[in-house]
Amino acid sequence: MPTHAIQDAYPPEFAHCYGCGARNPHGHHLKSYLVGDETVARFTSDLRYSGGVPDHVYGGMIASLLDCHGAASAAAYAYQKEGRQVGDGSQPIRFVTASLKVDFKQPTPLGVELVIKGRLRSLEGRKAWVDLVLTAGELTCAVGEMLAIRLQDHAHSCPELTVPASSE
Amino acid sequence: MPTHAIQDAYPPEFAHCYGCGARNPHGHHLKSYLVGDETVARFTSDLRYSGGVPDHVYGGMIASLLDCHGAASAAAYAYQKEGRQVGDGSQPIRFVTASLKVDFKQPTPLGVELVIKGRLRSLEGRKAWVDLVLTAGELTCAVGEMLAIRLQDHAHSCPELTVPASSE
Repeated sequence: MPTHAIQDAYPPEFAHCYGCGARNPHGHHLKSYLVGDETVARFTSDLRYSGGVPDHVYGGMIASLLDCHGAASAAAYAYQKEGRQVGDGSQPIRFVTASLKVDFKQPTPLGVELVIKGRLRSLEGRKAWVDLVLTAGELTCAVGEMLAIRLQDHAHSCPELTVPASSE
Repeated sequence: MPTHAIQDAYPPEFAHCYGCGARNPHGHHLKSYLVGDETVARFTSDLRYSGGVPDHVYGGMIASLLDCHGAASAAAYAYQKEGRQVGDGSQPIRFVTASLKVDFKQPTPLGVELVIKGRLRSLEGRKAWVDLVLTAGELTCAVGEMLAIRLQDHAHSCPELTVPASSE
């Protein structure tokens, strides 16, 4: 497992996401890692994040985990394609979500560790398609697919002008 | 505007959702209403729910709002189709999300009132398709489409056996 999470390499001005931003003191601080050709994050929901039925995770949390992990995955695969290491100190890479589809396969148990994995489907220009899966033990609870868009480099100092569609 | 929110008619054992459950003391308590042939909810995010870029709402919140509102909308349209009123005191109707797709059209401003609306695309048997849109003033920030599944009536006392796919 790499020592640095993908989110830790986000530029400070893009690191405020409630789901995964290191600079959001209130948030979930999801940490995603590139391991070989897949990305991995682990998260245990606090019991307050119940779904309608107690003891299950609410849908917004599941979508949030897939969203943050997917956007991080897209960045990691862009680093990889360029032969770079995540957080190599050079120009950071940041993607935002344009579209996210979540299929809820099973009720997701609350209070146990969830594992979220990503795999790159394609990366063309600024567009990355990432396939996602969320499991609890042997149980596949949700699967997702994401289209993420790479922020242009100059967006890091002027995001308002260049974020085409953003969830983060 | 009806006086009773759709979520207020959820059976108590299905009313714990962090996004919209009346029985979750920590949650967002989203309230959705059926008004004519569309459903409407209003929500202002606390500033902590920032996206990566400050002053925008994070993607997980947007997905959560669409998810909760969509499932509530499905229930409302099922009541309507049966010629019933939401919360009429008879057997309650409850849907859960099977699939949710969110397209993020614009960064969503934080700290202003968001309006989430739903429209029924189709309702066949236990399956409801709902189209969703989230706006901030004149700005269309996100659109969504949901497939929701109606819980079988006896699920209200034994949810584990009959929830086919659930986000709530």
